[in-house]
Amino acid sequence: METPFKDISVIGLGLIGGSFALNLKKHGFRGRIRAVDINERAVEKGIELGIVDGGGTDYSLISPSDLVVIATPVGVYRQVVEAVRENVKDGAVVTDLGSVKGHLVYMCESVLRGVAPFVGGHPIAGTEKSGVESAVEGLFERAKFIVTPTENTDEEAKEKVAKLWMSLGSEVVEMDPFLHDRVFASVSHLPHVVAYSMVNAVARLSGVIGVDLFQFTGGGFRDFTRIALSDPIMWRDICIENRENILKALKVFRSSIEKAERLIRENNGQKLKELFEEAKNFRKRI
Amino acid sequence: METPFKDISVIGLGLIGGSFALNLKKHGFRGRIRAVDINERAVEKGIELGIVDGGGTDYSLISPSDLVVIATPVGVYRQVVEAVRENVKDGAVVTDLGSVKGHLVYMCESVLRGVAPFVGGHPIAGTEKSGVESAVEGLFERAKFIVTPTENTDEEAKEKVAKLWMSLGSEVVEMDPFLHDRVFASVSHLPHVVAYSMVNAVARLSGVIGVDLFQFTGGGFRDFTRIALSDPIMWRDICIENRENILKALKVFRSSIEKAERLIRENNGQKLKELFEEAKNFRKRI
Repeated sequence: METPFKDISVIGLGLIGGSFALNLKKHGFRGRIRAVDINERAVEKGIELGIVDGGGTDYSLISPSDLVVIATPVGVYRQVVEAVRENVKDGAVVTDLGSVKGHLVYMCESVLRGVAPFVGGHPIAGTEKSGVESAVEGLFERAKFIVTPTENTDEEAKEKVAKLWMSLGSEVVEMDPFLHDRVFASVSHLPHVVAYSMVNAVARLSGVIGVDLFQFTGGGFRDFTRIALSDPIMWRDICIENRENILKALKVFRSSIEKAERLIRENNGQKLKELFEEAKNFRKRI
Repeated sequence: METPFKDISVIGLGLIGGSFALNLKKHGFRGRIRAVDINERAVEKGIELGIVDGGGTDYSLISPSDLVVIATPVGVYRQVVEAVRENVKDGAVVTDLGSVKGHLVYMCESVLRGVAPFVGGHPIAGTEKSGVESAVEGLFERAKFIVTPTENTDEEAKEKVAKLWMSLGSEVVEMDPFLHDRVFASVSHLPHVVAYSMVNAVARLSGVIGVDLFQFTGGGFRDFTRIALSDPIMWRDICIENRENILKALKVFRSSIEKAERLIRENNGQKLKELFEEAKNFRKRI
């Protein structure tokens, strides 16, 4: 694997950071991969599994790297990027794998200004699991990687990051960071909030009906709520950082639910069938 | 396979009726299986695939059967069971595979009174696909089969039906027909309405944002909305026939969504994390 980077640091060695490192190695990356994580055990585990070559809890470990990849929950970005500024070497590129871009990309750029170019990124891949031990080989293959340049973005740094992701098999798509947040509020953040809420509703209904309803769930419910197994801290941070867009998406979703509810209440079988057909036809396209 | 029935008719040869017939054969059922369907092609397809031995569109075809299995959408039950009454032989048992029980079980009993014993049933299995060509081998193995006796149920008929389903590998669970409808309004009907509504919300958001959002969906959205590919007629009928319970479940779900929404609006990260953790812990149990 020929890459524009020889030494890569991953900050936050969880499922996504770990999968990134694992797939670099699987694609023949010959350079060094380090991990920095507040959890020493995560780094040890990553070394044990052969996913990273070294690392620890100290940010000074990133200083030899020519690429620094932030893969922590988005809620700690400010403190992470400030620590990166103190330790990153001249000429290194800083990028991230977070699910919220918008104002966070501008914050990272602003903190790193004059120190290192920042390139915002978001791989559209993942599972409901957490931790480096859940890293998945091939996770990014044929998946989109959204890169979110701004008017401040260093073109060369962006191209290098894009090239790295293409080498992992991803399809690189450029998107404005604020548009990114509207798009993923709709297709990713909204469904997560709804899945968590569905599980809590069924827990509450168990109390109302007096039956442990979870024993009667079938495959539909299981698939529907799989994403409710996702990391609560990661998703809390996403909900807070992308608050305005998620609230807008929730509003549209609620009006969609209320429409179905109204048709059921009014016994309007014809319109209800049309509503379901419409949804089925949209869903067929993906 | 030793069964209490030698000649079985399936009315409505779709995914569930077809899977029932297919799995009877796979488990070594030696008797005859007929299909009656308003769609001649479904029956032809079932014969072609070796799933049923014969059939057609005429209800008189059921007259040699000692078990008649209704597997149509629940919205046509009244006309189906009236046609069954006219054609079923003395001593035959009538059962069904519908997702709504409650008042429908009493209606079937009442129409068949003095003609044939009725045993309400509901296999907790399925896929989002439709049609006999989508019949699945092993679909009912280790799945629950809910049998919903009433004070009128013929004990012997119930035992025979239960035995048949156990021979397909199902775990037979008895439940009051009205309780059944409250339980499955929560864990099955509600998620279907929500999945259809989610797809329609994302379609609407595509218009608002000016981007075809469906091109940016990942695995989470795909799994979440898989059930929105289900048959709109089947689900319209379920929503109409189990209206009151679904409306109650929707109310609880809406209050669950509104709680998450309020915490996001209030920027309450701590409570939001607790809410997600709670959901994750419930979800882990299934």
